[in-house]
Parts: sequence; structure tokens; C-alpha cells
Amino acid sequence: MNVLMVGTIALDTVETPFGTKTDILGGSSAHAAVAAGFFTKISIVAPVGEDFPQEYLDLLGRHNIDTSKLVKLNGKTFRWSGYYEFDMNQAHTKETQLNVLTEFNPQLDAESRKAEYVFLANLDPDIQLKILDQLESPKLVAADTMDFWIKSKRKALFEVIKRVDYMLINEGEVRMLMETPNIPLAARRLLKLGAKAVIIKKGEHGALLFKDDDHFSVPSYPQEMFKDPTGAGDSFAGGFIGYLAKTDDISDGGVRKALIIGSVMASFNIEDFSMDRMKILKKHEIIDRFGEFARFSKFDALQAIHLGGY
Amino acid sequence: MNVLMVGTIALDTVETPFGTKTDILGGSSAHAAVAAGFFTKISIVAPVGEDFPQEYLDLLGRHNIDTSKLVKLNGKTFRWSGYYEFDMNQAHTKETQLNVLTEFNPQLDAESRKAEYVFLANLDPDIQLKILDQLESPKLVAADTMDFWIKSKRKALFEVIKRVDYMLINEGEVRMLMETPNIPLAARRLLKLGAKAVIIKKGEHGALLFKDDDHFSVPSYPQEMFKDPTGAGDSFAGGFIGYLAKTDDISDGGVRKALIIGSVMASFNIEDFSMDRMKILKKHEIIDRFGEFARFSKFDALQAIHLGGY
Repeated sequence: MNVLMVGTIALDTVETPFGTKTDILGGSSAHAAVAAGFFTKISIVAPVGEDFPQEYLDLLGRHNIDTSKLVKLNGKTFRWSGYYEFDMNQAHTKETQLNVLTEFNPQLDAESRKAEYVFLANLDPDIQLKILDQLESPKLVAADTMDFWIKSKRKALFEVIKRVDYMLINEGEVRMLMETPNIPLAARRLLKLGAKAVIIKKGEHGALLFKDDDHFSVPSYPQEMFKDPTGAGDSFAGGFIGYLAKTDDISDGGVRKALIIGSVMASFNIEDFSMDRMKILKKHEIIDRFGEFARFSKFDALQAIHLGGY
Repeated sequence: MNVLMVGTIALDTVETPFGTKTDILGGSSAHAAVAAGFFTKISIVAPVGEDFPQEYLDLLGRHNIDTSKLVKLNGKTFRWSGYYEFDMNQAHTKETQLNVLTEFNPQLDAESRKAEYVFLANLDPDIQLKILDQLESPKLVAADTMDFWIKSKRKALFEVIKRVDYMLINEGEVRMLMETPNIPLAARRLLKLGAKAVIIKKGEHGALLFKDDDHFSVPSYPQEMFKDPTGAGDSFAGGFIGYLAKTDDISDGGVRKALIIGSVMASFNIEDFSMDRMKILKKHEIIDRFGEFARFSKFDALQAIHLGGY
């Protein structure tokens, strides 16, 4: 199955302890699509300005991404600039230029409306709702968000959360949204409020799935060196939905594997700036790292006899 | 196999959002021993004052703990008082009264010197070294520490780290000790400096084992309600070494299971103040929760065919 993604495409300027890069390809749907493109065909609906480089269109095209549905608007492409300090856990925004993003009001074409796998990357929840209204019979919809929307569009965001199959949110955001420091409690409250499933992204600590009475803990990956965390959450989401669409297996077991694949893709994405690592990533590396995740988290069942009486 | 534990026994006064308790049983070796006592016989070498309540000696005795090697000193028992704020991730110390702890200079008897499984709970690293000097041929020694010793006795602590088989340390401490925010990097550096194996305790995010080229990620447990995190790390260590001693299986697989057992015991310990949860804990609950850890972290191997070309 193909995947429809709606989100942002950005020209990022990023400073980390490993260097500064100007006007590099970024944005929620760009990172997600590049990760997902390793598994299936992706089409992106996102706004770009007149200044969007052909070079980046070509790059996306080489990653199995149909760029023909990008919305070309008059003006400049959305720009974000920010920096990471020594611990690289927190992005600090220096400047956001919304530019064409303010004009983005996507109308899906007939083909996109029929999409079965859909990812609503981080974007204004009002626009995410408009996309949901246009979908005819999606098999699976996942959505992502950020703290900005929790603060400014709480009500619309809750509507999105109720209408999608998998809501992705990071640990700090879910604490903020549910007003409790306890992540499992926050996730369970979100389920009670109508979310079907919640995926908590915890960066270096892995991720957690909460769904009905089920729970899955995605292990952390022991990444000793990374250069740029920008887009980690987006590539996690991209790997997740790309793998689900490829296998068309949305069973609990299929979802667990897809969450590991998401973590694999995020772990690669942060190894270099923008798409620099993804550009040279090979499929056998994905398979090998999946194997590492399996080896690093495997343990045998307990033999109850070992707990025998004293 | 039995386990020898050396550490502190304390009378704690703890404030959490769930209440305040005065002079409750605490201390690194008390929490560790109560957790370990579910699996095998424990003897504790730790100082207590003249005011140490018989009631607590009885409690320890009921938990499979030999208290005959406790060192009774003139004066008052070590006391710690502290509080946890809303997020309960960080203990804030209000007052520490070292009392008899300052006089503690343990001399092991002939039986203790022959101990095969030894846990050096959080304590002055100079004393930990004195214990190591007295052990004849231990099969496995684990040690724990805290930020206070990293700041005040760095050199002695490094000696301990080099001489034990498993060094336990929490995520903030290992970052401080190795002067890097990256946990895997900090752990690898510690191995290069001579540690045989490092276990990083991450609280709600689980734990990590680093050993040679091996790595194991202990999953987090989705604890929605807990009342008092005091002693979580100690009961983790206690469950770990207690289970290892019980099974006498120190293979990589045995160690992984023991780390899960440690997490199980810590997850119970924090459910109530002091030993209140452990006092009523049943073995079948331990087995059930181990099963939850297994279910919450299991995923199938990848079928490489799903990554076939596009």
C-alpha cells in the first residue's frame, strides 16, 4: 500500500555541537516521507514556496516519494532555525518564518482521498481535521503534534486525537496535555478521553505504545554518536507507517514490529544533518539494526521453579 | 547461594504527595535485602544505633534476612529525611544525620569472608574497598553508589568500579561521573576505564546493561500509581543479586532475567512507603509481573522479505 502524508516541508538552519547547516531540507513530512520511502511509495501534500530548490525535489524523488502533489504557493518556503546545546535533548527555536505555511489549505485530489494509509505529520490540528474530513475510507491514520498546538489549539487537537488510529506525542507533551508527570497515567487518561492508541516518543529512552489493555515498550538504542536530532520523531513516525503500509499487517504483532522499524529509522536519521545519513542508508543496514534491537531486548521466560519456597 | 550485603540501615522521614511518614525503615542495604530475601537467604552487615526498633529487626527476620551480623554501635541510628515534589523523580534531602554511620568500620567474620554473592550497597567507597579486601573468593560482587561519593570520593569510587563485577549507577550519576550527557558513551567510557559491567538505572525508563560488546535494555514498567520512590534503586539491586544467587546462573541469559527481576522488585517497592508493599508481596505477584515485563517488550523477528525492493 502507498502512504499519503500531509505536513510541512521546511528549509532548516540548524546549529548543534557538530556544526551549523543553513537551508537544509527539513519539515515534518519531509523527514517522515524519506524514512517511509524505504518501504513503500509515499505521496506528500505540503506547501513549498517559489524558492524551494529543485535539488531537494530530486532528492525526495530518489527516495520513492511522489512530489507531484506538493502545493506550490507564491512566496517563500517555511523556514525554521534553531540550535541544540550540549545535551541535544531539547531543540531551541531561534526563528520561525511561516511564509507559505499560512496559506496552506489543502484540497485532496480523488486519488489522495482514497488513501488507505495516512500520516498527518505535525501541523495545525485544524488542517489535520480538514484532511480527515476529506478521506473516504482510510485503513489506518496516524497523527503527530507538538507543544505549540497543545498550547494554542487544544480543542482541535483533542478532536484529531479522537479521530485517528494512532496518536504520536512525545513524553513532555503528553505530560503537558494531561497535566500529570506520570507518563502511563497520562496515556491512560488520553485513552479514556477517546484516543484509540497513543504512542509516546521518549527520544533516547525509546517509545511506549498504549492501546486498550495492551502496552508495548520499545527499547532504547545505545547511540553513542549523533549529530542532529532534528526530525527524529518524524522519521520514527515515517518508518512506523511506511512499514505498516508495506506489510499491510496492522495486527498487534505487526504494529510492534513497525514501532521497532520506526526506532531504527530515527536512530539513523540523527546520525547526520538533514537527510545526509538517509541518503546513503542501505536496506541491509536497516535489517541489521532491527536485529540489534531484538538482541538488545531479548530475555527468556522465567522458570517459576527459581522462585521456589524458602 | 546466600548473599552478603553491606550498606546502610536508616530511619527515614519521607514526604511525598501521598503523605508523610516518620522514622520508617530505610537505608540502602535494608531495601536491597528485603527485595533479595524473596529469593534466597541474606545476611546484612550494617550499623544500627541503640534506638533501632526491635520491630524492624523482626520485620527483616521475617524476610529471610539474618540480622545477627548487624553492627550495634553506641549512639543513634543513621537518619535521612527528605521530600519528593509532584513529579517524584528527584529526592530532595532535608537533613542527613550520619550518627553511628561515622563509626562504621566493618570487620567480616570467617563465614562472611567466604561469601560467594556480595552486594556493596550505597556506602562510602573507602568502606566498600575495605570489604573487597576481606572477601576470599567471591563468585560475583555488585556495587552501588550515589552522587555524593562521585563528588567527594572520586578516586576511591573508581577503584571500586574496577574491582566489582557489576557496577550499578543511575543515569544522572553516570553522566556526572563521565562528563558527557550521552548515556551509552558514558557507559562505554567506564568500561574502557576498567569496569567489567555497568548497569544504568533509569527509573521510570527502565535500565541498561553495558558489558564488553553486549548490551541489554530493560523495559520500563507502566506504573500508573506509586507513593514513594525511596529505595527503588536498592530494591532493583536486591532483586538482581538475590535472583542470581538463587539460580546460581551468572550467564548472560541469567543476568538478563535477574535484571528483569530487579525491575519487578523496584516496581513493587515504590507502590507504598518503606517496606509496606514488600511486607504483603506474594511470590505469584512477582511471577505475574515478570510475565507482564515479557509481554510488554516482546516482538517477533523481522522477516527480511518485508524489506524487499521498490
